[in-house]
Amino acid sequence: MPHRAPGSPGHSRQQFLSGQPIRYYRPTGSADIRRLIDEGFQAFNAGRLSEACSIFADKMLEPADNTTIGLTIAGAMTPAGLGGCVIELMDRGLVDFVISTGANLYHDLHYALNFTLRRGSPFVDDRELYEDGVIRIYDVLFPATVLLETDAYIRDFLVRSGMNGPIATSEFHYRLGLDLLERHPGCDEHSVVARAAKDGVPLYTSSPGDSSIGMNIAYHELMNDSRLMIDPNRDVNEVCAMVLAGTRNGCVILGGGSPKNFYLQAQPTLWEVYGIPKGGNDYFIQITTDQVVWGGLSGATPAEAVSWGKVNPGVLPDTVVAYCDSTIAFPLFCEYAIGSANGRRPRKELVHQRERLVAELTREAKAARAKKKEEVRS
Amino acid sequence: MPHRAPGSPGHSRQQFLSGQPIRYYRPTGSADIRRLIDEGFQAFNAGRLSEACSIFADKMLEPADNTTIGLTIAGAMTPAGLGGCVIELMDRGLVDFVISTGANLYHDLHYALNFTLRRGSPFVDDRELYEDGVIRIYDVLFPATVLLETDAYIRDFLVRSGMNGPIATSEFHYRLGLDLLERHPGCDEHSVVARAAKDGVPLYTSSPGDSSIGMNIAYHELMNDSRLMIDPNRDVNEVCAMVLAGTRNGCVILGGGSPKNFYLQAQPTLWEVYGIPKGGNDYFIQITTDQVVWGGLSGATPAEAVSWGKVNPGVLPDTVVAYCDSTIAFPLFCEYAIGSANGRRPRKELVHQRERLVAELTREAKAARAKKKEEVRS
Amino acid sequence: MPHRAPGSPGHSRQQFLSGQPIRYYRPTGSADIRRLIDEGFQAFNAGRLSEACSIFADKMLEPADNTTIGLTIAGAMTPAGLGGCVIELMDRGLVDFVISTGANLYHDLHYALNFTLRRGSPFVDDRELYEDGVIRIYDVLFPATVLLETDAYIRDFLVRSGMNGPIATSEFHYRLGLDLLERHPGCDEHSVVARAAKDGVPLYTSSPGDSSIGMNIAYHELMNDSRLMIDPNRDVNEVCAMVLAGTRNGCVILGGGSPKNFYLQAQPTLWEVYGIPKGGNDYFIQITTDQVVWGGLSGATPAEAVSWGKVNPGVLPDTVVAYCDSTIAFPLFCEYAIGSANGRRPRKELVHQRERLVAELTREAKAARAKKKEEVRS
Amino acid sequence: MPHRAPGSPGHSRQQFLSGQPIRYYRPTGSADIRRLIDEGFQAFNAGRLSEACSIFADKMLEPADNTTIGLTIAGAMTPAGLGGCVIELMDRGLVDFVISTGANLYHDLHYALNFTLRRGSPFVDDRELYEDGVIRIYDVLFPATVLLETDAYIRDFLVRSGMNGPIATSEFHYRLGLDLLERHPGCDEHSVVARAAKDGVPLYTSSPGDSSIGMNIAYHELMNDSRLMIDPNRDVNEVCAMVLAGTRNGCVILGGGSPKNFYLQAQPTLWEVYGIPKGGNDYFIQITTDQVVWGGLSGATPAEAVSWGKVNPGVLPDTVVAYCDSTIAFPLFCEYAIGSANGRRPRKELVHQRERLVAELTREAKAARAKKKEEVRS
Repeated sequence: MPHRAPGSPGHSRQQFLSGQPIRYYRPTGSADIRRLIDEGFQAFNAGRLSEACSIFADKMLEPADNTTIGLTIAGAMTPAGLGGCVIELMDRGLVDFVISTGANLYHDLHYALNFTLRRGSPFVDDRELYEDGVIRIYDVLFPATVLLETDAYIRDFLVRSGMNGPIATSEFHYRLGLDLLERHPGCDEHSVVARAAKDGVPLYTSSPGDSSIGMNIAYHELMNDSRLMIDPNRDVNEVCAMVLAGTRNGCVILGGGSPKNFYLQAQPTLWEVYGIPKGGNDYFIQITTDQVVWGGLSGATPAEAVSWGKVNPGVLPDTVVAYCDSTIAFPLFCEYAIGSANGRRPRKELVHQRERLVAELTREAKAARAKKKEEVRS
Repeated sequence: MPHRAPGSPGHSRQQFLSGQPIRYYRPTGSADIRRLIDEGFQAFNAGRLSEACSIFADKMLEPADNTTIGLTIAGAMTPAGLGGCVIELMDRGLVDFVISTGANLYHDLHYALNFTLRRGSPFVDDRELYEDGVIRIYDVLFPATVLLETDAYIRDFLVRSGMNGPIATSEFHYRLGLDLLERHPGCDEHSVVARAAKDGVPLYTSSPGDSSIGMNIAYHELMNDSRLMIDPNRDVNEVCAMVLAGTRNGCVILGGGSPKNFYLQAQPTLWEVYGIPKGGNDYFIQITTDQVVWGGLSGATPAEAVSWGKVNPGVLPDTVVAYCDSTIAFPLFCEYAIGSANGRRPRKELVHQRERLVAELTREAKAARAKKKEEVRS
Repeated sequence: MPHRAPGSPGHSRQQFLSGQPIRYYRPTGSADIRRLIDEGFQAFNAGRLSEACSIFADKMLEPADNTTIGLTIAGAMTPAGLGGCVIELMDRGLVDFVISTGANLYHDLHYALNFTLRRGSPFVDDRELYEDGVIRIYDVLFPATVLLETDAYIRDFLVRSGMNGPIATSEFHYRLGLDLLERHPGCDEHSVVARAAKDGVPLYTSSPGDSSIGMNIAYHELMNDSRLMIDPNRDVNEVCAMVLAGTRNGCVILGGGSPKNFYLQAQPTLWEVYGIPKGGNDYFIQITTDQVVWGGLSGATPAEAVSWGKVNPGVLPDTVVAYCDSTIAFPLFCEYAIGSANGRRPRKELVHQRERLVAELTREAKAARAKKKEEVRS
Repeated sequence: MPHRAPGSPGHSRQQFLSGQPIRYYRPTGSADIRRLIDEGFQAFNAGRLSEACSIFADKMLEPADNTTIGLTIAGAMTPAGLGGCVIELMDRGLVDFVISTGANLYHDLHYALNFTLRRGSPFVDDRELYEDGVIRIYDVLFPATVLLETDAYIRDFLVRSGMNGPIATSEFHYRLGLDLLERHPGCDEHSVVARAAKDGVPLYTSSPGDSSIGMNIAYHELMNDSRLMIDPNRDVNEVCAMVLAGTRNGCVILGGGSPKNFYLQAQPTLWEVYGIPKGGNDYFIQITTDQVVWGGLSGATPAEAVSWGKVNPGVLPDTVVAYCDSTIAFPLFCEYAIGSANGRRPRKELVHQRERLVAELTREAKAARAKKKEEVRS
């Protein structure tokens, strides 16, 4: 079989690309939706989602507590148009840092660069799509050229940026966002990466080689003899440091996957590896369709996390898992939070605090090591 | 609430740790199981699993084809005792490289170091476990000291090894395996990491910071001023290079998650980033409980992968997804394959071919770039 | 172990029954929710739910078509407070008949009789509940006396009604509803059974022995020598007759289970058993969390139904399955429909048309049989 | 659109019907499979399935206890060839009565009547199947004529049998089985309905109108003025009576659905309706892929059943749910049980005990009523 790149010339892709453009929906805090959630969502997963909304809006966002809140994102959220919700949460100071799959950040760039993803159907013939050069993410369709041109932008950015050594993903995404803001003014209205840079929200990726961004950095090393590389150690330590600095800690987990684990391992890193008795999360909200009985981490409950020291044993009432596709539950959740009395907080802008916080982590870890050595000696 | 590390002294953990030790079950190729699969597994997911067994044993392992086979592992397989299946497949040359979550490789070390994980129940009170210093992975239970002592071994290895710069996970795990073989002779009977080193099978992790191994490497950087770091670029390029070198390519995907994507992105990296028209996979087997309708990559079908050039459009009949917990389906699958006529192949020992293969990738990628520039110019 | 009925005296049940009362939420047609569904639900199951809303509101409810619409209900919808949505749809003429599990109709009676079900948690110790005489439906809690008193009402109704022979479930539920209306005036605001009687909407149960209503009818036969019994034949023929009479046919399926099959078998009954070439459904909407790959009928797709003649082969674009807990998706769906331009239709009041429609079915079936015999003879 | 019955002349169906015939696989008690389950199935759902095997083989089948065991069947088990497992369990006395969806018993008749169902694919175009007159049950394919000829047999049986009044499904299926045995000698090797009649195992259907058998009985009433009808009261009371008579009670639940509830409601019927303090089940085994968090009865846990008095509060350790497609797990489960020391028990042949057991139930229920009246009076 003669292989070729999808999208070779000579085919019409019009039939597949006739759906409405996907846009980043921006929640506005609808009172109707709040009433539905308070009064109509009474039991089963509707009840759980209602609890999640209350815990987030009434407890996690309580101004006096200044809880440090991480958002983790797995599943194709930006292709589905959920980036607008993330932008709104970041902008209003309702989440302090984000851990995402690389794919969500890569596909966010399409919006920043003004390419169009379209509503489609999951029931299409992928062999025809392949012939027509159309890429499919479940029911989201777009031309393969969107990939190629986004890649070209990334590779051009890599060359222009002059970055040439180990780097945290938070730093990498921050610089990428600044570049977008500079070259595409106003794109922060429809780009998570750009808005995060503007708002000072650190963006992490737990699997840095595992996305088109990672593929292009690998290209840059192989083909341009670059020394730029993602250093996962920095990501691990930065997330630990931010969690350590939180007076209270909580998370909103969309899906699960390696972003979930990357967030939740911060507390075990502190006690298990660094010997710092920080304690676990005070709040834990997850929206997922994965199930505990399949045994994977995505479906693991807040209760299981207690045994690992990831969640405080006393706070199980403030943990909740709502089993629902995030594309439905997350916009509802954001409408509720944004319409609440605590719908805006001062932004922590942690991107600019990373150095200080890692220094503090280092100090505490060294003190703990010294203390432990002394104990052993005596 | 006064926080403390789980496992503080003064508690009895005996009640939770009375279950049978989990051992690495080694499949032997039972004829009874083959007959059940051939004759009794006729429809629904039994039918799919039967198809998966046939495609693997009769087509992917066909000696004349010398298909390059990747195994990806997500979900807590080594805690559940499935490491013995992986050892057997590697040893018999039935898989050529492995991409795993870090957690599976970390927990494999417990077996290598002769610590004991035990059968338990998912219906226990995690607050009591926490009090008693017992860690739970769904229904697998073990003392928190197993974590602490495994971490101590890793940190000791990091110091002893003298590694002090960017490194691929394949290289890191290879050196770790050699260290285990040296210090714990015979442990390759009950350690995937050790056996992979002995058998020359490269082990990759797509999310290198996201496991206790990654946490300890991060510690090493922060506390010992080490320059050791995982370079995801090398992993991306090595996997690409191995896929490019395959005359045919196929995969066995357990679960999904970032290991699945890390494997499947190799072909898009080739055509989309490097401009090399390699074509997609010839075979695709997945055992998962995730569902296509939730839209995530774990549940994405082989058909969807066609639109991305990850799977060859002509081979959909040789792709299959069996929806089943891997702890049930994978041992059955291994028994079938091992008992087949193609139950042993010469090992490729790709760990020792990596440099050569990446050089070949570089050569082809540069040729493709030169050709493209020339086309643009003319 | 000495067994006893839950709720024996001597225990306090207060701790479990402190949650808010569950009330039947009545959707009002929120414009905000319509905008969220139109603009924010763009892909994945949000996209499917948006499609379901459009198909229902814009096509199925199109006044000119006068589509006959069946609603099927599985899963604990009335315990979760969803009865208000069903009342609103029936009252506005948006569904013409209902097929439900018996459990949903039984638990609806608690609301009619002014007993209180309460919001609770699924994470309670059922042994304590049992000791305290508290009944649990996932996270809905109420005293066991609610069962006993509802049973007492049913048995009293059975005696008072004087019914003493075979009866369709539609007739049984109609008479039950009339009794509720008479004895508990105003209860049709919080009872599906009462409102259906008032609105002339037939209520069917596909598994008539399989609920507390069926248990009490069985008691009535055994203990009172009654001859009252549900005759499933009448239900089968009535549903067939209503489907046959529809100029267009469509369904809204919540969950799946035997109500789904009972609705969908109407068309096969017509062509396969009665020899009447009616054709399949024109519209098919399902909200479920069951999956096609598990192979059961609940998860079977509209496409599979085509091969059985249950769905017209030409209408697949007007079929949709949204994978979501009905407690979340169904209120959203109802808000959308009620707020649409077609949010009210004249009620068909089919309860009063059953005799005429079954007569018409009999006439057509006999004509078909006569014609077939003639064909065989010639 | 001109509608027509699937299978109109003029099309070739050969392409879809080229798969292997599905046969009833008969488990034989493989020692290899027992070893795999004991030693290799250690955790997660493999661990649960291993527990289910032990509880069934070692406890429920313990000869001294003479536990009364019900098997409930939902999902397309006979189309998938699982009828051979059911035959083997019934014949060896390992299950005492069966509650099944009507569909499983209807499709079992195809095997009895020597029609052929074939292995196929779920990925076919149902519009083409419809054109070609091929019926699809997920991946099982067969000509529509199989339905028509099976229906013709049923209608002929209904006329021949002379049955003309209310009847329990157990009686109906028993007579149907005897008819099959008489007209198709030897068919009990490949028919559950025939074998059940031979072995005296009562077969119940919880939703009697909801299958092609029910459709044909409805036809018989409408077209032949028959008075034959299923009386669900008798089914409810017979199942209650068998459960009441059990010294110990246990169940094996495949899937869930209305058969599950129909079995489990027996104990609540006894205490809640009849006032007989029997207590709940001693053993509870379920193989399902449905999930507790979706809130339906299929996914409800043994724990939830405790609050209803369906399961004894003291026996939770002897209850287990294994999450797996029954087409994989059930044959494994049967191999294990059949190969165990308790792999054969004397058959109870309850079909012949029904009258006596219902009389005993009546006696106890009347005694309970009399006692209660006396208590109220005094």
